[in-house]
Amino acid sequence: MRERLEQQIQFIVEIDKAKRIMRQTYLSDGQNKENDAEHSWHMAIMALLLREYASEEVDVLRVIYMVLIHDIVEIDAGDTFAYDEKAMETKEARELAAADRIFNLLPPEQASDLRVVWDEFEDNITPEAHYAHLLDDFQPFLLNLATGGKGWVEHAVHKQQIYKRNQFTGTTSPEVWQYMKEKIEEQVRRGNIIDE
Amino acid sequence: MRERLEQQIQFIVEIDKAKRIMRQTYLSDGQNKENDAEHSWHMAIMALLLREYASEEVDVLRVIYMVLIHDIVEIDAGDTFAYDEKAMETKEARELAAADRIFNLLPPEQASDLRVVWDEFEDNITPEAHYAHLLDDFQPFLLNLATGGKGWVEHAVHKQQIYKRNQFTGTTSPEVWQYMKEKIEEQVRRGNIIDE
Repeated sequence: MRERLEQQIQFIVEIDKAKRIMRQTYLSDGQNKENDAEHSWHMAIMALLLREYASEEVDVLRVIYMVLIHDIVEIDAGDTFAYDEKAMETKEARELAAADRIFNLLPPEQASDLRVVWDEFEDNITPEAHYAHLLDDFQPFLLNLATGGKGWVEHAVHKQQIYKRNQFTGTTSPEVWQYMKEKIEEQVRRGNIIDE
Repeated sequence: MRERLEQQIQFIVEIDKAKRIMRQTYLSDGQNKENDAEHSWHMAIMALLLREYASEEVDVLRVIYMVLIHDIVEIDAGDTFAYDEKAMETKEARELAAADRIFNLLPPEQASDLRVVWDEFEDNITPEAHYAHLLDDFQPFLLNLATGGKGWVEHAVHKQQIYKRNQFTGTTSPEVWQYMKEKIEEQVRRGNIIDE
């Protein structure tokens, strides 16, 4: 029992490092950027509040499990900006090695549980993974909106990049995608997103 | 439908501020302190991983709901350090006012759901609330240990304060309390916790 608890504690202390993995998204104050732990916390609450908009029935506990752990691999692999095509090429290999190391700090059956949930998120086939991916896009979208598009302007983001990244959002949730499309057009009109 | 979604989004953007509510606990690097969002994320993962140690049967989704939102009131009320007796006197009134304002940004039935879950945490009577409170103590305990007791030393924390705060931990989880007691004694021997 004690050895098992020690392994679990080792993992719990290790993932504290996710609080220092910085993302490209500004917090709503437009000053500091967000880290992976904050992003995952925010997504988990959104998973609870917005499930009525998921077009498929979802097991919300599984979605929360998924969103809470989906970025832990970035402790080793780093955050890969969604619109950095070069970094995206090596993302998978870096993240697989990280999953092997970090999840295996846990007792074997918990390591395996986490790996299955993380793989499910990455494979993005189940209703739960679809909904989790929607939240992974919608959460920074809302923060970008709240800061008047600061992140979009700094990275010179094009409308087509957002559309490509959100190609399945309309299927996962017509309501959320409708909202996003309207806001994207508004941001294009304001010159915060490039129209092409 | 659109007005409802707008209300939900207003709440989601508002609670972003929890990422700027700083706690007294140092992150495992011993440099930066933790904020409420990070603390809640960490607790939610612990809720999933440590449930085998809860002496009562718990609905883990409800525990996660509780830990994710338990500190949102601090956006208005501020973080109250557990060993600051003067601040603890006014904590309840400050937090009740905050709950009224922040939860009510949501559509009425979701506002009510969150309030019920938050009240359950505060009342600390159900198995889920007991387990959530254990996590609320054990999470910063592990970070304090990871930093060699930095937070305990800085605040000149006495052993009896930790015992008082954890008076129900042994009932909620004998295994976790056994672990904590051993580590407390070790920290007393090292002079990081004051022995009285």
